[in-house]
Amino acid sequence: MNQTPPIADFELRRASLCQLLHWLAVGRAQPQALADAYLSAIERIDPQLNSYVDVRAGLLHDQAQMADRRRRDGVIGRLDGIPLAVKDNFDVAGWPTRAGLPDRDTPVQDDAHVTARLRAAGALLIGKTNMDEGALGAATDNPHFGATHNPHRHGYTAGGSSGGAAAAVAAGLAVAAVASDSLGSVRIPASYCGVYGLKPTHGEISARGMVTAARRLDAVGLLARSADDLTVLLQVLAGYDADDARSRRRRVAFALPDWEPGHLRVGLLPNLAAVGVEPEVIEVFETAMAKLPHALSDRRTVDFADWNFSRTRRAGLLLMEAEMLGTFASDLARADKPVSARFRGMLDFAAKKSAADYAIADRVLDAATLKMRRLFAQVDVLVLPTTPQGAFPLDGPAPDSQADLTSFASLAGCPAVSLPMGHLPNGLPVGLQLVGARGSDLRLLELASVCAATLDTAPTYPVIA
Amino acid sequence: MNQTPPIADFELRRASLCQLLHWLAVGRAQPQALADAYLSAIERIDPQLNSYVDVRAGLLHDQAQMADRRRRDGVIGRLDGIPLAVKDNFDVAGWPTRAGLPDRDTPVQDDAHVTARLRAAGALLIGKTNMDEGALGAATDNPHFGATHNPHRHGYTAGGSSGGAAAAVAAGLAVAAVASDSLGSVRIPASYCGVYGLKPTHGEISARGMVTAARRLDAVGLLARSADDLTVLLQVLAGYDADDARSRRRRVAFALPDWEPGHLRVGLLPNLAAVGVEPEVIEVFETAMAKLPHALSDRRTVDFADWNFSRTRRAGLLLMEAEMLGTFASDLARADKPVSARFRGMLDFAAKKSAADYAIADRVLDAATLKMRRLFAQVDVLVLPTTPQGAFPLDGPAPDSQADLTSFASLAGCPAVSLPMGHLPNGLPVGLQLVGARGSDLRLLELASVCAATLDTAPTYPVIA
Repeated sequence: MNQTPPIADFELRRASLCQLLHWLAVGRAQPQALADAYLSAIERIDPQLNSYVDVRAGLLHDQAQMADRRRRDGVIGRLDGIPLAVKDNFDVAGWPTRAGLPDRDTPVQDDAHVTARLRAAGALLIGKTNMDEGALGAATDNPHFGATHNPHRHGYTAGGSSGGAAAAVAAGLAVAAVASDSLGSVRIPASYCGVYGLKPTHGEISARGMVTAARRLDAVGLLARSADDLTVLLQVLAGYDADDARSRRRRVAFALPDWEPGHLRVGLLPNLAAVGVEPEVIEVFETAMAKLPHALSDRRTVDFADWNFSRTRRAGLLLMEAEMLGTFASDLARADKPVSARFRGMLDFAAKKSAADYAIADRVLDAATLKMRRLFAQVDVLVLPTTPQGAFPLDGPAPDSQADLTSFASLAGCPAVSLPMGHLPNGLPVGLQLVGARGSDLRLLELASVCAATLDTAPTYPVIA
Repeated sequence: MNQTPPIADFELRRASLCQLLHWLAVGRAQPQALADAYLSAIERIDPQLNSYVDVRAGLLHDQAQMADRRRRDGVIGRLDGIPLAVKDNFDVAGWPTRAGLPDRDTPVQDDAHVTARLRAAGALLIGKTNMDEGALGAATDNPHFGATHNPHRHGYTAGGSSGGAAAAVAAGLAVAAVASDSLGSVRIPASYCGVYGLKPTHGEISARGMVTAARRLDAVGLLARSADDLTVLLQVLAGYDADDARSRRRRVAFALPDWEPGHLRVGLLPNLAAVGVEPEVIEVFETAMAKLPHALSDRRTVDFADWNFSRTRRAGLLLMEAEMLGTFASDLARADKPVSARFRGMLDFAAKKSAADYAIADRVLDAATLKMRRLFAQVDVLVLPTTPQGAFPLDGPAPDSQADLTSFASLAGCPAVSLPMGHLPNGLPVGLQLVGARGSDLRLLELASVCAATLDTAPTYPVIA
């Protein structure tokens, strides 16, 4: 038998999950070597990046050893040997769940639904990633755990609230990551860091064991280096969970969707500037759309005149803040290691809101549901930038509008994918967002894959070496 | 051809909907004669009963005339010629929707979803029925439209908030009625008036055009004189409505459910007294259960130790009151014809509640959903009294606990049927409630039909003559 050369560490670190599964299957990569490649890169790079808040090298070695053994025995799971990261608002038995808050050092007893599924599929847990305090924000500039830097430019935000997860995936410090997206927390950092992000149909992946932000919005999201990787992860993690009241019984079909590029009806907003998208982002968007005549040929302008994106986002934010007053009651009461003044201020704002205000905000979600339902009777996919801007400097102010283009899909429970769309004049990436009707997750991911191949904006890994 | 004798008016008025459809089909009854029988009874009886707030004799005649013509032409709908009532919180084009509130005299433009479906099925609209002010209550002692009396005893409540609808059906002033049930508003008056009531699976019948109480709880409910009548009505009214954000896409199957009496696992509460059921009601319940060894043979006690019925009800009530502050904002602002002090007081209570309180109450609904989901993994149907007590005198206080046994099914979105269970020592009826998993509506109705045949507590019509 010919001896094939081993894959170099930097190749293991920029390969897609699908590529790694192939290398593992044919024996060109081994779980332990893979884990080592990721661990040593984390040791070298993460002190500057700060994408992880908790990495357990010993545990990862143990897991990798067992994965090696399973491979030798020939009994493997669907993600066997793949090193993954989990955002620090998901429970991992034996680890604390910090959710970006101080003084939460008690290990939890049980795995979150997704953690258990990842374990059962043979994935290796590298560690837990940095996030905004209480997941309330989109900058991952955490007052207790520090800021996560954008792998493409130090001193710039990675986005949030899943900034640590996106930065780790972009910098080759995790093959993929499981994170949360309640108003855009996966898609925004995917856009800023130049990776792929999925917020599935609401309830498609059980959120049991995830720290509650707002139950009606909370979605388990995924970050990866290709659309196909997201598909593989979705297939492992999706499914009905009888112990989660919000779990969805009608799942996305896992047979390949029956469509052809060019046959989908593509909806476009009439005026991106009017909804606050910056001119540079519009230019990147238009360039991308010009490159996609085949995949997205049947284009039509959709009517959003009656829709106020920022009002929608604020309604969702109120639900989240109001629910967090209960979720984080004991954190807010703690005097010794207090939450930040910013976090307390946002929840204090919600504390002044009445039950009637909550009901009115919740009605905006019903309206969003109807709006999207009517929209997706006219088009199959809505295409727009993921964020109105690219990453901003960590020492400057965070724009209010970051979640304006992502939150409406959250409010309507619709799936949305962000894929790299191109680069801004300052060299930083920005994402293209595909939004579909509930249950159309797989079709969106396939379309994202087709678009990515055409755009040829595969993620760049500035700090891979 | 033999001439069959015409059916007497009082027989037309106590017949079930199914019986009337048969008589209409074989020509033993005609729409106009049927409408006349109901109208003249309303003129004679309703001044004492006060079940209707709006009856339009001329319109009913016109509708009956058209129904006669459709019969001659042989093109009829599924409810063609059947005189029905609608609770006054559903829109009927050209009529005002009062919802039990003063000074709402402007006719609305569009039919509610159910009104349109009833029209399309050929039903005749008799009029709109009395209800609690803003549907907030369970006594139908309306400060603006007067109290509806229990047909079984003048001076006693018919229950609420759909008291007018239940009284009209019990007294033979409507064949059946469409009403709303957000925490028990159909089942409570069904229990007190000795008729059949259904609250379907949440979202099964679209609530579009119904005055919103609390969207997560609001269900279109049905009142009739037999379980089979409820089945016929459900089949006409159920179905997905793209214009209602809460409409349910996964409908109940309309094929006959595949089960046999005696094969269903029947759940019983361990201690009815502990959840506030009065001793006389427990006695009627136990007598009824003793008569049903065949239909309900496989009995098991279910665990409700962790469940607080009155806390559940109060959580639902808060959602309702908070949402009503928005729904009825202009009614509350009106100075000339004000809402009652009681109504204002209840909403003032909610006005003091915070958004965080709302989120906490809303979480009780998620907990109820999980509780019921786990319960219906162990049993097929939960059987308990519909109300902790029977009808009470209108001049006495209304018990707080009226909705304690009905509200948890509302919170969990489960279907529930109330059927006449027997009579209390004071001669007044009380209902037996069957609760099932979401989507099991038809099985519950069939079971109710089997139980009713065995119990032989067919409704009595004290004022039919």
